[in-house]
Amino acid sequence: MKISNNIEALIDALKILPGVGPKTAKRMALNLLSKNKDGAEQIASSIQNAIETIRACDSCGVINDLKECNICSSASRDNFSLCLVETTSDLFSIEETKEFGGKYFVLNGLLSPIENIGPEELKIPKLIEICKKRTVKEVIIALNSTLEGEATSYYLLDKLEGLDIKISKLAQGVPAGGDLNYVDSNTLRQAFSWRRELEKN
Amino acid sequence: MKISNNIEALIDALKILPGVGPKTAKRMALNLLSKNKDGAEQIASSIQNAIETIRACDSCGVINDLKECNICSSASRDNFSLCLVETTSDLFSIEETKEFGGKYFVLNGLLSPIENIGPEELKIPKLIEICKKRTVKEVIIALNSTLEGEATSYYLLDKLEGLDIKISKLAQGVPAGGDLNYVDSNTLRQAFSWRRELEKN
Repeated sequence: MKISNNIEALIDALKILPGVGPKTAKRMALNLLSKNKDGAEQIASSIQNAIETIRACDSCGVINDLKECNICSSASRDNFSLCLVETTSDLFSIEETKEFGGKYFVLNGLLSPIENIGPEELKIPKLIEICKKRTVKEVIIALNSTLEGEATSYYLLDKLEGLDIKISKLAQGVPAGGDLNYVDSNTLRQAFSWRRELEKN
Repeated sequence: MKISNNIEALIDALKILPGVGPKTAKRMALNLLSKNKDGAEQIASSIQNAIETIRACDSCGVINDLKECNICSSASRDNFSLCLVETTSDLFSIEETKEFGGKYFVLNGLLSPIENIGPEELKIPKLIEICKKRTVKEVIIALNSTLEGEATSYYLLDKLEGLDIKISKLAQGVPAGGDLNYVDSNTLRQAFSWRRELEKN
């Protein structure tokens, strides 16, 4: 027996979710349809609601339901430091640390010639305009340390040169609670080169 | 900044999917909304389509789009052997082996007093009626070998007694390509007790 077309279509659709392969998608689809039709309804309707109301913030690009997000419109956040992240999800991760009191700029991607993502797609010209207008003093680059992340960082370093802005990058090193035995050698190498002198009391 | 309510609602809804926890749901939701709104639309609409058209087969309970599924209505499948499975997904796994030419009965669950799932919920009275009407000769129990699976098997064994039906169960043993070093001791114990004499040519 073949799986019905509408189930196949649902399996195909679920494969769109990040990290979901054909086997997981099949399990999800059959589970929803045989055991949890109400849950399935809820997923469909909350996708529809979110699509209709969610947009990117006009200034920083974060995904939210306002024209200007709560951070960009906040008077209590400092205008002189700007943290650059790849995704909305990265922004929320940094917000959870409560370590940063400035504003953000979400690239919503990384430079990738293969996928045809250039500076225009990442709104880098707009970023530079913001830096000038707000007289930003420090840009903190908080991108993933992947090949695309590094390439994007260097491109930005080049573009922001001459604007009298301090440009910093998140530290690389051993993760908190990390066991040296389980840390890969690239990370260890980075931890060595980023080492800091301990201060005596 | 807090995540917008509609994004939170979508994250909550995605947690309904089997195997999806809060972190994965958040990643999925933000990925869909920032990078793939068309994909999100497609998921929502295929869920709606599937919910509207998909039903359980009246005879065997498999999830499909017909009142009577292709297997139950097929003239080429033998009426005398009936394979009992827990889910539609299990039925498809067995169909893929092309090993079985009979018909199925999908319980859509297992006996579980804690979750209030009794014989009525699993349509066991209907199963017995089918066995009598079709003069089924063999019932193959193909349930998971979990506690609930075993309990359900024994319950069925008891109920089908006296109907002059051979009742068999899928063999338990070392999986194909399995390395004895990695097989747990319960499986090894089962493999011993199910061992079979090798035949000489």
